[in-house]
Amino acid sequence: MPASSRIEQALDRAVALAELGAPPLLAGALRYAVFPGGHRIRPSLCLAVAKACGDPDPEAADGAAAAVELLHCASLIHDDLPCFDDAKLRRGKSSVHVQYGEPIAVLTGDALIVLAFETLARATRANPSRLSPLVFIVARAVGAPHGIVAGQAWESETAVPLTDYQRAKTGALFVGATRAGAAAAGFDPTLWGTLGDKIGEAFQVADDLRDVLCDAQELGKPIGQDAAHHRPNAAALLGIGGAKARLEELVRAAVESIPDCPGADSLRTLIKAQVAQLFPKQLSQAAA
Amino acid sequence: MPASSRIEQALDRAVALAELGAPPLLAGALRYAVFPGGHRIRPSLCLAVAKACGDPDPEAADGAAAAVELLHCASLIHDDLPCFDDAKLRRGKSSVHVQYGEPIAVLTGDALIVLAFETLARATRANPSRLSPLVFIVARAVGAPHGIVAGQAWESETAVPLTDYQRAKTGALFVGATRAGAAAAGFDPTLWGTLGDKIGEAFQVADDLRDVLCDAQELGKPIGQDAAHHRPNAAALLGIGGAKARLEELVRAAVESIPDCPGADSLRTLIKAQVAQLFPKQLSQAAA
Repeated sequence: MPASSRIEQALDRAVALAELGAPPLLAGALRYAVFPGGHRIRPSLCLAVAKACGDPDPEAADGAAAAVELLHCASLIHDDLPCFDDAKLRRGKSSVHVQYGEPIAVLTGDALIVLAFETLARATRANPSRLSPLVFIVARAVGAPHGIVAGQAWESETAVPLTDYQRAKTGALFVGATRAGAAAAGFDPTLWGTLGDKIGEAFQVADDLRDVLCDAQELGKPIGQDAAHHRPNAAALLGIGGAKARLEELVRAAVESIPDCPGADSLRTLIKAQVAQLFPKQLSQAAA
Repeated sequence: MPASSRIEQALDRAVALAELGAPPLLAGALRYAVFPGGHRIRPSLCLAVAKACGDPDPEAADGAAAAVELLHCASLIHDDLPCFDDAKLRRGKSSVHVQYGEPIAVLTGDALIVLAFETLARATRANPSRLSPLVFIVARAVGAPHGIVAGQAWESETAVPLTDYQRAKTGALFVGATRAGAAAAGFDPTLWGTLGDKIGEAFQVADDLRDVLCDAQELGKPIGQDAAHHRPNAAALLGIGGAKARLEELVRAAVESIPDCPGADSLRTLIKAQVAQLFPKQLSQAAA
């Protein structure tokens, strides 16, 4: 089964368990927030690493990938709230609080965080020794002090250490994705952090470029948000050509970091292809 | 060590790991939201059950108790937000969003949810087979479809099934507390759900009575909130005398539900004493 189908099916199984018997608005918002998805780049990365490790436990890998994506969706819902970005648009449709109201949006994010951990537990019933490392990896990626929540919280500070901020807000869940993929396959997750870290930074730079270069319709969310919210942006900082060079350097470092494993070659090819999709279409002409 | 010290120390260890290196406002808010606590009734119940089961794994029991309380604190922060109760006061001081702003309040709740699961993983490193049942128990208590988040989400619906609502909003975490205490001790958690369910309902009835009878200073939070938010209230529904009778019936049922275990007698005594503390001081004269 292609990775994309595995991811959608794992997410569907997880959401189905949460929505059955839940208050109707919450149930609707849970599904609305998760489907249809964006690029599913984090769970794809997680599964790609598990596959490179031989994919000995597909159930654990699918659960890890789903957990990572559920947490990503949760962070988008809360980031879009009026007290943060107040974003009306997400993935080409109304954001969750616009569609379902603010109370349901807060609760949907909360429920998805809980569901992520429950999904890990469900996916490791056959190999329960894999649960503990997965919980630690995922918690580190999203919680305090260094996960997504911390990244978002840096935006409330006056003095923001740029690397800490970007590592936490974007990089941490990419690191979580690669490490969770390895842990789900019973491999040493610590060897896989650099891959996630480099791809995460590449993704951040690509996102910064899109925020500057794209229009809102193409992006499916508002543009110019970094400038509007006084957030650091690599394209503004390094120039568009400089940001493009940095992006290429990061992809090289990511590919070189891949540890010895049965499917290292295929993983290298896959990552180059996936990152290429992130380059904004306007980049070649703009950087010329 | 008395149960109350074990709980405070377990919470302190958990929060210390989350705050070290976190953005300063988030770190401050995490501690502010957890300390000083209220009655710590849920973690006390969790530890009391573990003790009744012989307390063979104090580290797991302390972690389970801390996780339950962290999730309770998270739910209070999010419940107090302007889009829900808009409560200015909690545990006798400003609520988290009043003290730290709404963005940090949302993130602090999120971080505490994540921290709860991480705390379970940390507390079961010596006995990793206990992690999976604990994650399921805790997730069921707080997530969708039947946990706290669902309970809160029922408030956004026009037609609210009263039992589902109260079971989810208050009962679920009490059930989680008793079942987690048993699971942490390696006992069958399913036998311990009724105890949590009955105490949870007793607590709800007592809370409804306090909402009607107490003043805000005594309670440490605003009164008359149920009427103000059009929420069902047992004292309004059954009358004060009827609510008091229901409360006594629930305590009896709770005590009778306690399964065979080494410390059943002490647990019965403890529960009677703890529930007695919940009765509003005004109750005897008001119900006379």
